[in-house]
Amino acid sequence: MPVIVQDAETGDVLMLAYMNEEAYQKTLETGKATYWSRSRQKLWMKGESSGNVQEVKAIYIDCDEDTILLKVHQVGGAACHTGHRSCFYRKMDGQGAFREIEPPIFDPKEVYK
Amino acid sequence: MPVIVQDAETGDVLMLAYMNEEAYQKTLETGKATYWSRSRQKLWMKGESSGNVQEVKAIYIDCDEDTILLKVHQVGGAACHTGHRSCFYRKMDGQGAFREIEPPIFDPKEVYK
Repeated sequence: MPVIVQDAETGDVLMLAYMNEEAYQKTLETGKATYWSRSRQKLWMKGESSGNVQEVKAIYIDCDEDTILLKVHQVGGAACHTGHRSCFYRKMDGQGAFREIEPPIFDPKEVYK
Repeated sequence: MPVIVQDAETGDVLMLAYMNEEAYQKTLETGKATYWSRSRQKLWMKGESSGNVQEVKAIYIDCDEDTILLKVHQVGGAACHTGHRSCFYRKMDGQGAFREIEPPIFDPKEVYK
């Protein structure tokens, strides 16, 4: 099930992730966002490598009950593995090209060793 | 490709939808959000029945280039076919139950005839 992750303080959309039943239960138990990695085919607690965990502040379900919205406190301020605050750090400009709109907060090389 | 739709004015997450290449091109051409309906297997311009179209204000792409974020002006104020402002109108309470947090803005029976 897709999970939209939104910063509880700023309202910024941080990322889209996925949960299976186990990830969902783990998230409820721990209060820290845990997802299902489709590429690695395993559970991952967001921030387990970087320390940038997501403390869950609120959980919403959509009309069709097939998408979750999490409002989180993003520890460290950055959700993206690139070091950016949000995974959506590129915006389409007037010419139809995606341009980086803000610099990374951390250097991924320093964080993921 | 999943598309997170956010209200450009309030920052509220309105819905999650999907686009294929054709829907994406249509959205760029018209400036009105057009999605691919997975259940009906066809293109739909959001608001084609209700009049509640979504005027695209900004388009973002995520780090993996597999999710889009749209910031939109939601005509009519409500994105959800239930008449709610957002599809995420149910929030988990302290007992783990999802509760409606706000009433619908319109009556679906009046809008979808």
